[in-house]
Parts: sequence; structure tokens; C-alpha cells
Amino acid sequence: MNKLKLTKLCSIFNQNGLSASVEGDDRVVHAVNTLQDACEGEISFLSNPKYVQAATETKASAVIVKEGINLPTDMSVIRCSDPYAGVAVAIIKLHGHRKHPAWGRNENAQIDPRAQIGADPSIAPGATLAADVSIGDRCVIYPGCFIGQGATLGHDCVLFPNVVIYDHSVLGNRVTIHSGSVVGQDGLGYAPVDKKWIKIPQVGRAVIDDDVEIGANCAIDRATLGETRIGAGTKFGNLIVIGHGATVGPDCMFVGFVGIAGSASVGKHVTLAGRAGVTGHVSVGDDVTAGTQTTIASDIEAGSTVMGFPAGPASQWRRTVVALPKLPEMLKQVKDLQRQLRELRERLDATE
Amino acid sequence: MNKLKLTKLCSIFNQNGLSASVEGDDRVVHAVNTLQDACEGEISFLSNPKYVQAATETKASAVIVKEGINLPTDMSVIRCSDPYAGVAVAIIKLHGHRKHPAWGRNENAQIDPRAQIGADPSIAPGATLAADVSIGDRCVIYPGCFIGQGATLGHDCVLFPNVVIYDHSVLGNRVTIHSGSVVGQDGLGYAPVDKKWIKIPQVGRAVIDDDVEIGANCAIDRATLGETRIGAGTKFGNLIVIGHGATVGPDCMFVGFVGIAGSASVGKHVTLAGRAGVTGHVSVGDDVTAGTQTTIASDIEAGSTVMGFPAGPASQWRRTVVALPKLPEMLKQVKDLQRQLRELRERLDATE
Amino acid sequence: MNKLKLTKLCSIFNQNGLSASVEGDDRVVHAVNTLQDACEGEISFLSNPKYVQAATETKASAVIVKEGINLPTDMSVIRCSDPYAGVAVAIIKLHGHRKHPAWGRNENAQIDPRAQIGADPSIAPGATLAADVSIGDRCVIYPGCFIGQGATLGHDCVLFPNVVIYDHSVLGNRVTIHSGSVVGQDGLGYAPVDKKWIKIPQVGRAVIDDDVEIGANCAIDRATLGETRIGAGTKFGNLIVIGHGATVGPDCMFVGFVGIAGSASVGKHVTLAGRAGVTGHVSVGDDVTAGTQTTIASDIEAGSTVMGFPAGPASQWRRTVVALPKLPEMLKQVKDLQRQLRELRERLDATE
Repeated sequence: MNKLKLTKLCSIFNQNGLSASVEGDDRVVHAVNTLQDACEGEISFLSNPKYVQAATETKASAVIVKEGINLPTDMSVIRCSDPYAGVAVAIIKLHGHRKHPAWGRNENAQIDPRAQIGADPSIAPGATLAADVSIGDRCVIYPGCFIGQGATLGHDCVLFPNVVIYDHSVLGNRVTIHSGSVVGQDGLGYAPVDKKWIKIPQVGRAVIDDDVEIGANCAIDRATLGETRIGAGTKFGNLIVIGHGATVGPDCMFVGFVGIAGSASVGKHVTLAGRAGVTGHVSVGDDVTAGTQTTIASDIEAGSTVMGFPAGPASQWRRTVVALPKLPEMLKQVKDLQRQLRELRERLDATE
Repeated sequence: MNKLKLTKLCSIFNQNGLSASVEGDDRVVHAVNTLQDACEGEISFLSNPKYVQAATETKASAVIVKEGINLPTDMSVIRCSDPYAGVAVAIIKLHGHRKHPAWGRNENAQIDPRAQIGADPSIAPGATLAADVSIGDRCVIYPGCFIGQGATLGHDCVLFPNVVIYDHSVLGNRVTIHSGSVVGQDGLGYAPVDKKWIKIPQVGRAVIDDDVEIGANCAIDRATLGETRIGAGTKFGNLIVIGHGATVGPDCMFVGFVGIAGSASVGKHVTLAGRAGVTGHVSVGDDVTAGTQTTIASDIEAGSTVMGFPAGPASQWRRTVVALPKLPEMLKQVKDLQRQLRELRERLDATE
Repeated sequence: MNKLKLTKLCSIFNQNGLSASVEGDDRVVHAVNTLQDACEGEISFLSNPKYVQAATETKASAVIVKEGINLPTDMSVIRCSDPYAGVAVAIIKLHGHRKHPAWGRNENAQIDPRAQIGADPSIAPGATLAADVSIGDRCVIYPGCFIGQGATLGHDCVLFPNVVIYDHSVLGNRVTIHSGSVVGQDGLGYAPVDKKWIKIPQVGRAVIDDDVEIGANCAIDRATLGETRIGAGTKFGNLIVIGHGATVGPDCMFVGFVGIAGSASVGKHVTLAGRAGVTGHVSVGDDVTAGTQTTIASDIEAGSTVMGFPAGPASQWRRTVVALPKLPEMLKQVKDLQRQLRELRERLDATE
């Protein structure tokens, strides 16, 4: 664990493009923690104004906070244009990234003699590498992982325990996959014949590009033909499902339970909130953002922010859901209007 | 397997706070079964009136049934204030809980020399305990489980096959986790920089309190900082996702596909039906109940019963969904009202 | 890999009940591929008119296409009544089904001496078969699979890596389960006592009939009593949850994230799109189709096509979701109508 003075940390923030300056004593910090849990020697942060009270009560030695929020004058503060980005830098500098065990090429791993292993591997006992697997340098393969025949991994990949990579899948460099996720299993490829489902061999593959990180217990189908592809730099939460033949562009962010159906195509830098879904053969443009539980059932233009079922402009959907609880009352009002109108007409008939 | 006379079973019910009495012959039963599948010597139960017909046709030697439901007079019946609670007691008494294999400290388990193991362990071949792991007495660790560096388990924990506990996670006593579930993986912690996602090391942990039971293929993130916490006695179904830094109170019940986003806070004794979700940073009070597919997107008061998107009072939501199919017709009615009103106005204009 | 002339392939189509004929040169093909990726010697297909442009640009040696779609006259074409069924046959003939590794009875598998193994097994290192397990002939058990005490598998089953079969579960013949799926774990069976949840031993089992294929990371509860059952020929996508005591009929097709709650009953040949759900104790008739995200909360008649929350006729739901965005405007219109009507009444009052 490192130790840094606030002024030093601040200059690192500046090097990372953040505008930041110290207010108060130039203390030494060695760790980052939450406002509630932080102790002497730790630095915390305040990004969401909801937690100002916690910030005034924290035992942290310093707090990273944005302009315009006032904290007690005896506190040490790093005033920062983007506290969340600042805390990211602070965690990287003070804590660093997870260290993985160095298993080398463990004798209790099941490595096929025809597998090709790069330099400095860490392959755990209980990991399995099938025939013709090829993995790059410095890959970390935890226990219980299975890499199927002919699959290839680039350099610096990390497969956490119990990840399964089916045969002939392709992972780029620096791909990280969390426990229980599965890449390249057969999708729902069946031909319907007389109300039975005839299995179509799934002869395509799944391809995961560089710098992708995938959460726990996801499932990414192989394609029936061709490729299912996840673009470089894309990040997945947990329990995400990608159907066969779907393509996801680079730098996307998918939150838990997102589902992309077969042959759908998602552009780059698309953000899908929890439980959002895209139906089959639909195309989603670049830089689209979809709110929680959105169902995208037709093509969406680049740059849109969408919500609802089926997905429409988010602002419209928000107005709709605010109006929804008034619907039962409105039913009565419409009936009442019809009755009143009949009365008026009768009175008018009588008048004429 | 035990054998018990109905009168004996009845007195056990009474000891468990249930009001119960035998009607008909005092038969001996040795197992509990469904109305359909039960044979001679087995006892069944009738809780849902939907299944009265099945109860009259059952081959069971006796049926646990509540007041006010009449069955053929030649049947042996335990009349019980709460048949479902009764059947729970009967299953515990007649069948007991699952017996686990006694692997001891199996020589084919991968146990780091620095791991600390309590008394009477059952650690299967193919389980991995990393450095500085500490587990209490009588823990059962099935094959394919991985317990990462510095993680601790209390006494009497059961990890079914292929459970993964990431480094530094903390489990209390009597925690049971079903197959494929993952505790303590990194959440979606990235800082956005120039449309790229920069990984923030996730240095917090996941904490599971005493007597929690977790279904299959769940995923509980570690916190970015501080803790993700699941309170004592809480029970999860399958495929549940808990985001980083979320806290769930004690004695909750979450059904399959429930998702709690990062930094959300759920009170005690909260029941979330299948596919219900809570969005980030939202607070859910004690004793809240949410129906299936409810999306809780703002704070919910203790004791509420909510449904819908976004979550509102359940009674209101039910009226809304009943009204919904009338919406297209209402659109026409409103147009028609506008037309009629124009006509009336014109007639009135002519009259004046 | 096989090689076939188009006329030969065509006659195989005909043998499979498809009407098909060759147009253009009778070329030799050895593989099936997508329109985009296909090279010389490969055959592709065009089913969705959306991709006509890709078909005119493909490098494939031939394209399977239905009547009425015109492609450049120099292309070789198999004109086929059902191109998707045709491509299925072509993939089976040219590529065949996946070959599994032949592990025999691997010495690094953990096989209890009381387990019964059929002829020609392929049981991988790192697979575990507990006491009294019985598996039929030619089963393939990949690494990391666990088969619990007393569980039985029929002939020709395939368990991909890290599948878990709990004790006493029953699988028929030719059951295929993809990685990470779990069969027979305890469901949410608890009796509520003083705001605590008392565990009810789950003494029923899970039964999977012949020819079922299950995707990755699914979870199928055992029953509390009796059986949870999946009917013959049914196919599941990924991350599907089946609650305790639910029954699913034969020849169903469930897409990713489908959930069936406890004690629900689904008929035969039911198609549930992604994220569709059935609530507890509800009964779904044969040949029902439900759209994405449909929540079936009451019994559904055989042959229905349903959508929405709660599920209703799909045509009605489609009209409703088209009308929904007009709701906020309608609220204003109704208020305006009320105002106008008041004015008219006042004028009429003055007139009379």
C-alpha cells in the first residue's frame, strides 16, 4: 500500500486532466474509503449531494469534493472538477489493481499437450485447456476454468474461477471474465419440423475483442454461422445474455440482466441500463442510452436516449408513466363527459 | 426415515405453536408427499382450495387441512390452523435436512498451507482454498468451489458445487450458497474518460451475515469501497444480482431474477417478487413488499406494498393495468367527444 | 468436412420434405457461412428480405433462397420453400454435430465406487460422480460437472463444463445441458414464523425428460415434494429459472431470461420469448405463444398468443402500446373537454 501527501495526489489528479487543489492541511493518506467507514489516514469522496451530512461526520483525513459544496473549515479537502474520476485515480495510485496468484503452469492443471501457452502463465490447479488451445503471454486462468478445443486467448487475459470458453472462441488481449460466465455455448438454433425442434449444429464462433471485461454468470452464444462479437473496451455487468450472431460495438456499458437477442446489432459506446433488452435483428446506433427495463424492438438512431416498452424517447416515456396512474380516473371522466354531452344535446334539442 | 403416528405428529405441531387435531384413524406415516404422488403411509396437505378435488382422490394415508374444508369422512385428517406451516414441520420431522458427504479434508482439495480450517470440515476433491482463507467448524465445501485469498467463513456454512467466493469476502455462520453463485466479484466500477471506461480497482468487499441462504447462479458484487452487505436470515432465489455497495437488511425474501443496483439500500423483512428491481442509490424501507417486475426507482416508505414501473401503491397499479386495454378505445372516444362538442357549439352558435 | 454438389444437396433437401431446385451452375460446396463471411466453396442463405443487398454482394458459391426473391443471374441458387430449414439440413450434412473429447473413464475424474456407469462413457478429469449415481451409455461429462448422490442420467447425455446435477435428479436420454446450469437445487421453500424464514427440507426432485436441451447458467429447482418436470424435446435458452414444483410440457421453446414460478404448469409446444414469465400456480395451455417480457399472471387458454403485463391478447397489447405515448396529451384533452363543456352548459343556461 502506498502513502501520498494530498498535494502529491492533487498533482497526480492534474496529470490525469482533472482540475484539483488542496484546501486545509496537507495530510498523508494511504487508502480510500467510504465516508462512513473511513478512518484516520484514509481519504474519501463526496459526489452525490445526498451524502453531505455523512461528509461532515466522516473520520476520513481528507475528502475529495466538487466546487460549491461547503464542508467544515477544519477538514482537509481536495477540491476537484470531477470527484468520481478523482477517487478512481486515488484508488489506482493508493491501492492498485488486484494481484493474481502465480500458479505458473501448475501440475494439477489439465493442459493438453497440443495447447500453446505464452510466456509467464498462471494456470491454476483444476483448470482445463483442451487440444489446440492457444493463449498469449501472462494469462491468468483460475481453478475450474475450461478452455475448449481450438479456442484462442490474447495476452494478459484473466479468467476468474469457473469461466467456460467453448471450442473455437476467440478472446483478444487484456480480456477479463468474472466467475461463472460462459462464452461460445450453442444458441437457440433449431428448425421447427412438425412441432418438434430439430437441432442445427452451431458452427460459428464467439469473438471478444481487446480490453473487454465481463461480469459474473453471463452467457455469450456462439453464432450459428459467422460470429457473435463483443467490441473492444466494452464492459458487462452480471448475468448478461448475448444471443447467437449478435454484435456489440466497442466501448459499450451494459448493466446487469441486459439481454441482446440473436442477430441484433448494437453500435459503439451504447449504454444499456439494468434489464434493458434488444430484440432479434434490430439495430441500435452509436451512443444510444437506454433506461432500465427498456425493450428495444425496432431500430434506434444514433445518439438517442430511450426508455419504455417498446423503446421510445425517454422524455416521452417519463411523461407517459407520470400520466399512467391517472388512467382509471380518466376512464370515468370520459364516461362522465359522454353523459353530460348527451344531456346538453337533449336540452339543446328541446330548445330548438 | 422416521415413522410417526398422526397423534404424535399433531402434538409436535402443537409444540410448534400450531393449533391442530386428528380426525379419523390414528395412522402411522413415514413421509410427506403431494396429493397426486402420495402412497399408503404418506401424509399430504391441502392449503390452496384449488386442489380440493385432488385431496379427495389422494392415496395418502392422511391429509393436513385447514378448518372449513370438508374431505370424505373415511379419510384421516390433521385439522390445522396453518397447513403450510404444518407440512413444514412434518417434513422436518419425517425427512430431516439434507445430509452432506463427509469428505474430511480431502487430499484432492487444493488447500493453501496458510488457510485456517475449523473442526470437522468436509472439503471435497476439486475445491480450492487460497492463502489466508479462514473457515469455521463443520463447513461443507463441495467440488469446484473456490474461496479466494483472505476470505472468511463462519461455522456450519455450506457451499454447493462450483460456488465462487472472491478474495476478502466475509460469510457469517450457517450461510448456505447454492451452485454457481458468485460472491465478491468486481462490480461495474469504471470512470468514463473520452468515451472509454477506465477500471477502478474494487477494493471494498462483500459481507453475507448469518443464516443467509442464496439460490443458484446469483452474483453479489464486492463494494468499490466499504461493503456490499446481505443481512442475517435473508433468503435469495436463483439468478439474483446485487450491485456494488448495495445493502440488504435481515430477513428479506427475494425471488428469482431480483436485481438491486449499486449503493441501493433495502430494509429488513422486505419481500421482492420475481424480476423486481431497485435502482441505484434508492432506499427501500422495512417490511416493504413489491410485486413481480416492479421497478423501484425512488425511496419507498416502510410497510408499503408496491407494484409497477416506476413502483407505486399496488392497489393503484392494479387499477391502472385493468384500465390499460381500454386506452385505444378511449382515444377514439375522446376524439369523438371533441367532434360532438364542436357540433353542439355550432348549433348553440346558430341558436343564439 | 464433407463436399457436396448443389444437385446432391438439393435432393437431400427433397428427402427432408423441402421443395427445392438448383438454378445456375451445379457447384461443389463444403461449408455453410453467412452472406458476409462466405468464401468460394461455401453456401449461404437468404431468409430475411432485409439482407437482399448482402446476398447480391456475397462471395459464396451458392445461396439458398426462397421463391420470389431475385438475385443476379450469374449466381448459383438453391430455390427452396423454406430456406431456414434448408440451411439447417445443409449444416447438418456439411458440418455435422460437435465431436466431444473421448475421456473414457478418466483417472482424474472423481467417481464414487458405488456409481454405475454405462458403456463407452467420456468422463473428464475434474468431473465428480457421487455415490449411487447411475448414468447410461455414451454419456459425456465435461470437467467441473458434479452429479449428486442418487441422480440418474439416461443414454447419450452431454453435460458441458461446470454443470451441476443435485442429488436424486433424473435426466432422460439425449439430454444436453450447457455450462453453468444447475438442476435440482433447493427452491425458496420457507415457512414464515415471526418474521423469520424457517427452512423446509426440499425432498422432491427435478426430472428432465428425453431430448431436452438447456442453455447456459439456467437454474431448475427441485420440488418441495413430488417433481419439477421439463417435458421431452423442450429447448431452453440461457439464464432460465424454473421454480419448485413447476411443470413444463414437451416441445416448448423458452428464450433467455424466461422464468416459471413455483407450481406453475406450462402445456406442450409453448413458446415464451425473452424475459417472459409465469407466476406461481398458474396454468398455461398447449401451443401458447408469449411475446418478450410478457407476465402471465392467470391461466391462459391453449392456442393463445399473448403479450403484456398482465398477459392479454397480443393484438390488444400492441394497440395499447401504440396508444400509450398519446396518454399525456389525452389527459390535457380531457381537461379541455371538461372546460368547454362547462362553458357550453353556461351558455345554454343563459339561453334557456
